Amino acid sequence: MDLVVVGSVALDTIETPKGKIERGLGGSATHFSLAATPFAKPHIVGVTGDDFPRNFIDMLDSHNIDTEGIRTEQGKTFFWSGRYGENFGDPESLITELGVFANFKPDMPERYRNIPVLFLANIHPALQIEVVEQMENVRFVGADTMNFWIEGERETLLKLLKMVNLLIINELEVRLLSGKDRLMDGARDVLGMGPDILIVKQGKHGASMITKDDLFMVHAYPTKIITDPTGAGDSFAGGLMGHIARKGEWDMETIKEGMIYGSITASFEVEHFSTTGLEAMRKPEMNRRLEIYRKATQWPEIVGI
Amino acid sequence: MDLVVVGSVALDTIETPKGKIERGLGGSATHFSLAATPFAKPHIVGVTGDDFPRNFIDMLDSHNIDTEGIRTEQGKTFFWSGRYGENFGDPESLITELGVFANFKPDMPERYRNIPVLFLANIHPALQIEVVEQMENVRFVGADTMNFWIEGERETLLKLLKMVNLLIINELEVRLLSGKDRLMDGARDVLGMGPDILIVKQGKHGASMITKDDLFMVHAYPTKIITDPTGAGDSFAGGLMGHIARKGEWDMETIKEGMIYGSITASFEVEHFSTTGLEAMRKPEMNRRLEIYRKATQWPEIVGI
Repeated sequence: MDLVVVGSVALDTIETPKGKIERGLGGSATHFSLAATPFAKPHIVGVTGDDFPRNFIDMLDSHNIDTEGIRTEQGKTFFWSGRYGENFGDPESLITELGVFANFKPDMPERYRNIPVLFLANIHPALQIEVVEQMENVRFVGADTMNFWIEGERETLLKLLKMVNLLIINELEVRLLSGKDRLMDGARDVLGMGPDILIVKQGKHGASMITKDDLFMVHAYPTKIITDPTGAGDSFAGGLMGHIARKGEWDMETIKEGMIYGSITASFEVEHFSTTGLEAMRKPEMNRRLEIYRKATQWPEIVGI
Repeated sequence: MDLVVVGSVALDTIETPKGKIERGLGGSATHFSLAATPFAKPHIVGVTGDDFPRNFIDMLDSHNIDTEGIRTEQGKTFFWSGRYGENFGDPESLITELGVFANFKPDMPERYRNIPVLFLANIHPALQIEVVEQMENVRFVGADTMNFWIEGERETLLKLLKMVNLLIINELEVRLLSGKDRLMDGARDVLGMGPDILIVKQGKHGASMITKDDLFMVHAYPTKIITDPTGAGDSFAGGLMGHIARKGEWDMETIKEGMIYGSITASFEVEHFSTTGLEAMRKPEMNRRLEIYRKATQWPEIVGI
């Protein structure tokens, strides 16, 4: 099966306690797609400047990712520079240059428009709405957003949320969106805004899925190596949405499986700078991690107390 | 089966966003025992002042807890007063009056000394060592400690750790004990100090068990109500150690089961002030929570990616 992702394609300069990378491949759509590709064929909608290295596009192509929807505009590619401290918490943003991304107008290639599964990575909610409206047979829409849009574009975002099946955001964003301090109270409010399913990303503590009737929690995969967490959330979403696209279903069982796979794809991401961990991800190692993850989290047979 | 616990028996005045309790029953040994009692018979070693309400002892007795080892001394019972902020993080300590606890010398009733399972709640490590030495046939020793002893009584604590099978501490304590920032690195060092098993309490994020060869993680039970988290860690330890005592085994499967039960006993603790949640805990409701907990954390059947 196929899925469409719209989001950023970027160049990142990142410093962490493990080292530094200059102008590496970054962006939500790239991390997402590389994480989704073991499960389904991703089609990217995005934009780069004319300074974007051709070899990054070649690499994405070689991973069975459709890059036809990445337009090249005159100007500079979206550039972000950040620095992580000792505990790999929220990074300090040093430079954000939107470049051609400032005037990004998603323009969907004709053959993308019949694909049933869509992921809206974190971009302006007005653009997210435009993308949904360009799709002709979309059946399942996942979306991310951020504090900047929640605070500055609330009305547009609320309009978007009515078009979304699955919202994937972090704890702070649930608080900002709902105005509630407690996660479960806030989650209930967010579900009232439109999405059937809310997945709350909790970084090293994993992720929680909340619906009107269900709760499901996963731990983060217990990796021993953290080099660069940039893109971990997009890599989680990529594994999850890729699995949904592969199955062509979005029942609770599929979403749970997808969260488990997403935790595994995110573990490859954080172990290396840029997208290099995801590029080297192969199914035998993914399945080996699945068994380690199972052993570290699944209960022995328990009858009752 | 039976188990011995040595620790504090206290009076607590606690303020949380949900209200306030004045001179309620507190202390590590009390929370631990009430949590352990569905699984095994706890025998407390502790001390109170002559101001300690008799009805608290009667309540413990009525829960099949042996209070013979609680000595009454002339003077005041250990008193703690604290205040929790909106997010129920670390409380602000307002008053700590050690009272008779300052001169506590554990003196084990003769009939406690042949009990095979022992838990050393957080008291001076020299006293913890004395207790171990008074036991005549102890086979499994669990222990807690705190930053104060790690920083101030390190040599004595290191001597204790060689006598301990299972150490249950929080993330900060692992960092202080090991000097390592990263949890897994620190855990390895702590295991090198003596314990076969390290369980790291992570508050609302659950707990992780680490041994030389194994890792097992549990989420906190997803309770919707938090009223007063005081004693949650001791209640977790009580459920866990109670199960170990009941089975008379401490293989990995038993420890994993115990962590699951401990998460459930802790959920009763946090829902009410003082020990009232634990006092009302009954097996049918515990088993109902076990099923909710299972549904919220256990994977669907997954073959591979």
